[in-house]
Amino acid sequence: MYTRNRVLIERVTPIVDDGSYYAKRVINDLLRVEADLVSDGHDIINGDLKFKVPGSKVWKYMPLQLHENDRWYANLELKEEGTYEYTVEAWVDYALTWQHNVRRKVESGVEIKVELKDFLPIATQLSHKAKGKDKKWIEDFSRLINSQKLYNKAVELAISDELELVLRKYPVKEYATEYDRVLRVRVERSKAEFSTWYEFFPRSASKNKNRTGTLKDAESQLKRIADLGFDVVYLPPIHPIGEEFRKGKNNSPSAKKGEPGSPWAIGSKHGGHKSIHPDLGTIKDFEKLVATAHKLGLEIAMDFALQCAPDHPYVKEHPEWFKWRSDGTVQYAENPPKKYQDILPIYFETKDYKNLWNELLSIALFWADKGIRIFRVDNPHTKPIRFWQWLISEVHKKYPDCIFLSEAFTKPKIMQALAKVGFTQSYTYYTWRNTKYELVEYLTELTKGPEREYFRPNFWPNTPDINPFILQDGSEHAFLTRLFMAATISSNYGIYGPVFEQMVHDSIPGKEEYLDSEKYEARYWDWDKNNRLIAMIKLINALRKIHPALQQTFDIHFCNIENEQLIAYHKRSKNGDEHILCIVNLDPYNKQSGMVQLPLHRMPSNPGDNLIIKDLITDNSYNWHDEWNYIELTPTLPFHLFKIHFKS
Amino acid sequence: MYTRNRVLIERVTPIVDDGSYYAKRVINDLLRVEADLVSDGHDIINGDLKFKVPGSKVWKYMPLQLHENDRWYANLELKEEGTYEYTVEAWVDYALTWQHNVRRKVESGVEIKVELKDFLPIATQLSHKAKGKDKKWIEDFSRLINSQKLYNKAVELAISDELELVLRKYPVKEYATEYDRVLRVRVERSKAEFSTWYEFFPRSASKNKNRTGTLKDAESQLKRIADLGFDVVYLPPIHPIGEEFRKGKNNSPSAKKGEPGSPWAIGSKHGGHKSIHPDLGTIKDFEKLVATAHKLGLEIAMDFALQCAPDHPYVKEHPEWFKWRSDGTVQYAENPPKKYQDILPIYFETKDYKNLWNELLSIALFWADKGIRIFRVDNPHTKPIRFWQWLISEVHKKYPDCIFLSEAFTKPKIMQALAKVGFTQSYTYYTWRNTKYELVEYLTELTKGPEREYFRPNFWPNTPDINPFILQDGSEHAFLTRLFMAATISSNYGIYGPVFEQMVHDSIPGKEEYLDSEKYEARYWDWDKNNRLIAMIKLINALRKIHPALQQTFDIHFCNIENEQLIAYHKRSKNGDEHILCIVNLDPYNKQSGMVQLPLHRMPSNPGDNLIIKDLITDNSYNWHDEWNYIELTPTLPFHLFKIHFKS
Repeated sequence: MYTRNRVLIERVTPIVDDGSYYAKRVINDLLRVEADLVSDGHDIINGDLKFKVPGSKVWKYMPLQLHENDRWYANLELKEEGTYEYTVEAWVDYALTWQHNVRRKVESGVEIKVELKDFLPIATQLSHKAKGKDKKWIEDFSRLINSQKLYNKAVELAISDELELVLRKYPVKEYATEYDRVLRVRVERSKAEFSTWYEFFPRSASKNKNRTGTLKDAESQLKRIADLGFDVVYLPPIHPIGEEFRKGKNNSPSAKKGEPGSPWAIGSKHGGHKSIHPDLGTIKDFEKLVATAHKLGLEIAMDFALQCAPDHPYVKEHPEWFKWRSDGTVQYAENPPKKYQDILPIYFETKDYKNLWNELLSIALFWADKGIRIFRVDNPHTKPIRFWQWLISEVHKKYPDCIFLSEAFTKPKIMQALAKVGFTQSYTYYTWRNTKYELVEYLTELTKGPEREYFRPNFWPNTPDINPFILQDGSEHAFLTRLFMAATISSNYGIYGPVFEQMVHDSIPGKEEYLDSEKYEARYWDWDKNNRLIAMIKLINALRKIHPALQQTFDIHFCNIENEQLIAYHKRSKNGDEHILCIVNLDPYNKQSGMVQLPLHRMPSNPGDNLIIKDLITDNSYNWHDEWNYIELTPTLPFHLFKIHFKS
Repeated sequence: MYTRNRVLIERVTPIVDDGSYYAKRVINDLLRVEADLVSDGHDIINGDLKFKVPGSKVWKYMPLQLHENDRWYANLELKEEGTYEYTVEAWVDYALTWQHNVRRKVESGVEIKVELKDFLPIATQLSHKAKGKDKKWIEDFSRLINSQKLYNKAVELAISDELELVLRKYPVKEYATEYDRVLRVRVERSKAEFSTWYEFFPRSASKNKNRTGTLKDAESQLKRIADLGFDVVYLPPIHPIGEEFRKGKNNSPSAKKGEPGSPWAIGSKHGGHKSIHPDLGTIKDFEKLVATAHKLGLEIAMDFALQCAPDHPYVKEHPEWFKWRSDGTVQYAENPPKKYQDILPIYFETKDYKNLWNELLSIALFWADKGIRIFRVDNPHTKPIRFWQWLISEVHKKYPDCIFLSEAFTKPKIMQALAKVGFTQSYTYYTWRNTKYELVEYLTELTKGPEREYFRPNFWPNTPDINPFILQDGSEHAFLTRLFMAATISSNYGIYGPVFEQMVHDSIPGKEEYLDSEKYEARYWDWDKNNRLIAMIKLINALRKIHPALQQTFDIHFCNIENEQLIAYHKRSKNGDEHILCIVNLDPYNKQSGMVQLPLHRMPSNPGDNLIIKDLITDNSYNWHDEWNYIELTPTLPFHLFKIHFKS
């Protein structure tokens, strides 16, 4: 326990759970690493950020700067995708301490003849490390000291910035302390942080009322979806659907003849998770769909739903992958007294778990081989968290650009744990956060707490599973505001397409479930329909593409606005150049007005400056001179999307 | 990376810096350990606190209870001094899960014949673990299930609390997760948390104006100090004082003949840190002083000041323990342009540092052998933090009851680091926190943040180094309130005795330094003097001894009180039984009044209850019925120390 290291390194950030998991960033982000450097006495301390770029085994170094109150930082540009490692080292810097003391003495008029000589051992160390003109500079300075002539010149050099530069360039790290952990940040492609999702069921994609849709029909929808400004098309499972215990329309316990069942009851005599439902088409059709999507700038996201129908081939081939009961039947899913006999959970703790896990991994790799790089994972919170950690890291070994969206609507700590172990994005509680208080509280948790380092929200106003009460009266105001806030608060957002666009809202009475849900039957939509909501979706998606402040989630500030029905938030682009101010009227029935306060501390602006405020929705411009400004919004057009221009 | 463990264990508390350091408690405290247990799915999870009592190698187990939102806890009684280790393990409990599901099915009227049989493998596991009547209970239940008769009886047992008790008593921990660190809590004697300090200079203890004080004079003061209710007597260094570069009265650069110098300039031809100043007496005198103190219920705290006068024997005997300059002189302490030539800092990074550190350790052990168990460490922040970690742990190996008080008036993170590495108590910024805002903010940091686990404040209204501005006009009000708040907010507090008692307040103009400071000369005090302040010190110290709410620091709540000059705080004893409410008028000139809010959420009381409020200072009693109550305080008696009695 004897040690001469004098600096303690504490509270290094970003850190996720003491370094057990990686922090997340996207390409070209600036990573700000901070640390407390604590030492005794009055000597000058110094520190480096140590880091390895992805794939490299070589440590690189970047000097830490003092921020305040013993907290230091360095900003690292993340120029490569992959995993960076980083840690911190720090030491008492004897050379800088010497110069610091000499400067104070010279300022106080104290002679420093002895101090100059005290420098010579430091100079010797330095001249071994320094190169080129730096080496020469040090050697010249040493000779000057040794000559004992030109004292004033020697003093001038001793306190000079040139000397400090050399001392900082070649630090002599005696008794350096190294932070006791190596932390990691995973740098992903930009779509991990900025994506616009559209979900639809291929079997409802037919324009012909006489037959259900196929992958080819789905393919023919892609052009329109791309035109609307989406960039990810998420398809519910396209695999064969179980026939045993199949559910009927509106989740009735047994299907009538011809009813297609739920796509999430995967597997039948036609195959399992690596097969395509014969009614939808073939693997070739699928590959063509993926190729067409790519041409249109779209990516196909596949559903990754790890459960089996009773007639899934796995059940016969690998009975040990399921839990068997004392009566010789397989355990089906239950929520007593409810029975889900069409769904057999996989038994992740089976003795044969290694083979099981490898097979499940092979499903993801199979589809990745077919060009899929985005998986929307169904109910990951009902499978072991460590399984996901393993699976995602294994997929990333071969396909580092794979994105996993966690569909875990469950308790907060479980949702967080799934994000920590590797999920790229996560569904959120946004779907049920309607009032200003709820939204501000939830966004503060997501964007200001420890979650911001690893949990990337993806906001959905609706899903096939959730027809939220706020949309159930079909009011255009609700559809508009829920869409607008999802798309402008969160850089990742999505809609369950045709149902949302067409403001479908009939529910099972008293429940947040759709009536005649597409989960249990094919539907026919008027895919050529147009309405004001669809036009607004297109406009907002287009604005998202050209305004970087909307392409990130974490720089958000809720502005004071003196009306509980009005919510206002200010967002900046990552480089700080673009300033967006969004204001929403949450009241579906009344015009609302109030004074909004500009967050001047976040702006290159002072009270009294003339700002030009341009509404990107209406193209109207306003001149604002004050910190507080009057706002008025009707339910008909219930939001402003202001871009703020600062006069130079 | 394959693992079938399904529970993640996160955020275990108490924890200091990820477990690098121990948390601190005192004997008979209850340690509340908490942890997040996070798992997939809907199975029942279960967990244990694992702990080792001091000196034992055997893990013991205590079940965790669910608190809320996936947070679990256990309360461990700390019955022994020393270091406890603790960690957490958790698992999916298949047996409890089985019973949980069976109970839900029975409640819903579902038949459980198959489920009963599903239990048999669990019963087999259990019967291997269970003993005595538990084993028999399980075997009887198994037989009942196997017989397939008396179905209703089997159901009754299946859902019974008796079965749950057995399942909880013999948990089958399959695929248990263990928290990846073992944490520590050091349990110390109660004086670590509750102590009342009195500081005085033995050389000023003489009642004879013709000579300076000795250890014998100091001994004769102990009775009075014990009567005043103090329990720790802290003496500034009693070692030989350097003669070279000795400082004179009022810190003048050179002493005149006969001036005694600063006790902190340690070492001369008469000896060093293991010697007694010949003017003070002998080691025998010292041992007698210690023995007399013990008889009076006092402990002597020694100053541990690791620096040397230029004529300290170490300088000649171990020149390598000091820093030598290029002109052949030893580096003295400096704060340019100031020079402290009477003080040579020790060179902790010397090549010979192992011998140096061992010698410094031997000083502490030398005095501990003489009966000293409390060290007040002078300026620990100018010596390496890791040195203190080593030294304190080495002393604790032989003298586990040793208390170290850190005299580090420096930046917050350094003060915190010293507390983390082992200092028992710490001086604080209390000396400069005067306004209500300052006090509330500072106490919130000390008692509600992470520091509460390791940083024990010791509040001093003054020290020989600090004559704070608030005391410099000598107002009785200031002395009374500063004393009262130190003694009632912090369970550890102390005064720099005669100077404080007698309201000495003359300062070097414009500085917080005493004029004619005892640091540089012997003083003569009227030790028999009495005044109102001394009477109040005696009363408050006596009240501290009988009121457990004042014997702890961390359960404190600042009450709303509608006057910026009035501060009110509510404290409870650790068992929750005693409730104390202190109110102070901070205004030295005016009567102040206002309404104070009782923190009912911290009390066994409801609005409208009749409370009897007794002022322990005046013995007056009041009846309060309301949440808000009127308070009025004059500057003459500027505080209430209320004990709250709740009627049953």
